[in-house]
Amino acid sequence: MRIARFSVREGAAAGSVSFGVVEGDADQPDSLVVHTLAGHPFGAAEPTGESHPLSRVRLLSPMLPSKVVAVGRNYAAHAAELGNQVPDVPLTFFKPSTSVIGPTEAIAYPPFTSDLQHEAELAVVIGRMCREVPVDRVPEVVFGYTCANDVTARDVQQREGQWARAKGFDTACPLGPWIETDLDPADLAITCTVNGELRQAGRTSLMVRGIPELIAHISEAMTLLPGDVILTGTPAGVGPLNVGDEVAVSVEGIGTLANKVIKRG
Amino acid sequence: MRIARFSVREGAAAGSVSFGVVEGDADQPDSLVVHTLAGHPFGAAEPTGESHPLSRVRLLSPMLPSKVVAVGRNYAAHAAELGNQVPDVPLTFFKPSTSVIGPTEAIAYPPFTSDLQHEAELAVVIGRMCREVPVDRVPEVVFGYTCANDVTARDVQQREGQWARAKGFDTACPLGPWIETDLDPADLAITCTVNGELRQAGRTSLMVRGIPELIAHISEAMTLLPGDVILTGTPAGVGPLNVGDEVAVSVEGIGTLANKVIKRG
Repeated sequence: MRIARFSVREGAAAGSVSFGVVEGDADQPDSLVVHTLAGHPFGAAEPTGESHPLSRVRLLSPMLPSKVVAVGRNYAAHAAELGNQVPDVPLTFFKPSTSVIGPTEAIAYPPFTSDLQHEAELAVVIGRMCREVPVDRVPEVVFGYTCANDVTARDVQQREGQWARAKGFDTACPLGPWIETDLDPADLAITCTVNGELRQAGRTSLMVRGIPELIAHISEAMTLLPGDVILTGTPAGVGPLNVGDEVAVSVEGIGTLANKVIKRG
Repeated sequence: MRIARFSVREGAAAGSVSFGVVEGDADQPDSLVVHTLAGHPFGAAEPTGESHPLSRVRLLSPMLPSKVVAVGRNYAAHAAELGNQVPDVPLTFFKPSTSVIGPTEAIAYPPFTSDLQHEAELAVVIGRMCREVPVDRVPEVVFGYTCANDVTARDVQQREGQWARAKGFDTACPLGPWIETDLDPADLAITCTVNGELRQAGRTSLMVRGIPELIAHISEAMTLLPGDVILTGTPAGVGPLNVGDEVAVSVEGIGTLANKVIKRG
């Protein structure tokens, strides 16, 4: 099932925010319809009976995470392209809730960098409050999967020892277009295009550490709340974004998250 | 003014959470009284007329921040004691909302470290949503100040390149006992004791970068929300905590934040 969060553009309910179930063929955008849910998908969410063509709603970040925990250098070819080793233990960092945007919002090029880069990633959405999750019970705490772009100010990342500013600025965490709840994440194609040109192409099977190991490792330290998001690392091919670009992250079985890059206003 | 968040222990309102104004002499705990506010101190918070002796309420973390942004190596003597240089640009990292505890909660020694350490810090509580705050306008976005302990798993910090687990585990961010809104933070004594023994003693005037510069730097990248907290670095003298210890952070003009260390349950 595909769960989206959206606001309605027109009519009496214009501007109201709901969750909904998306149906249709993702390759045929005109076929896509969102069926509105009453309530939150973590609770008792019933269909309201209302539906909208997806083209008539504004898709929002499918979740509002309390935190995003991301993992660095989790694809060997990407670690190598930046001259890094694969770390002995997973390298984990946070992206704050203020960095999250949805699929219809723009990445705002921040003034303190001159080397903004894309990093296409598979994102895991946590469905249950949990801590110290054993590897074999990780599937129980996963709500679903979405696409993410771990947008990075590469020059700032290289200059500052910790990455709060380089990866935590406003709009640095596009998520979407929706959450796919029925998916085996073990071997999915991930791609990133910029203005339609292929820049990154990898498979989740190339992760150094898989999702169960990552979530066990992170939750060993901290409680994960429903809606929290885990970014699982980016494959090789990261590169620059410029104002005016459109960057699109696709994950097989989920869909495509496309964002324009604009100058910060 | 001292703003606390607390729950009432007894009576019809037992368990309810309120903000309140603390009055009395911090050196004479029996004199302290909390006057309950209706509403949130960021809004129109009126006294309810109800008051409690502070000893009869349970103090909670004075804010529930969406994020805590912390600054590393901001006192030269502390950078030196761990063999580090003062960084060219402030070193910033996040502690997640799930790491925040209040003054009556315990620090739970996590199982993945064998070197838990205290770091006494002055914390700044943001009062207004803001971004790209110029140095000279920082006072406008500050709501007040409280004490913080940037509890750190030192061995994990040294082993893992980014500090999400080492400084972001549950209970790694005690805050309190309340927020002092009328305070000049430029030259305050900061101390840390463990079981009554002095371990850290510094002054905020020894910060490498002062609060205006730190908040300008952080907000250059990201929006700060009301209630977000900035930790300003720790003076020299960091050292181990063990199960059974009581660690107390005091900042002149604010008060004392004391937490027991227990085994994680």
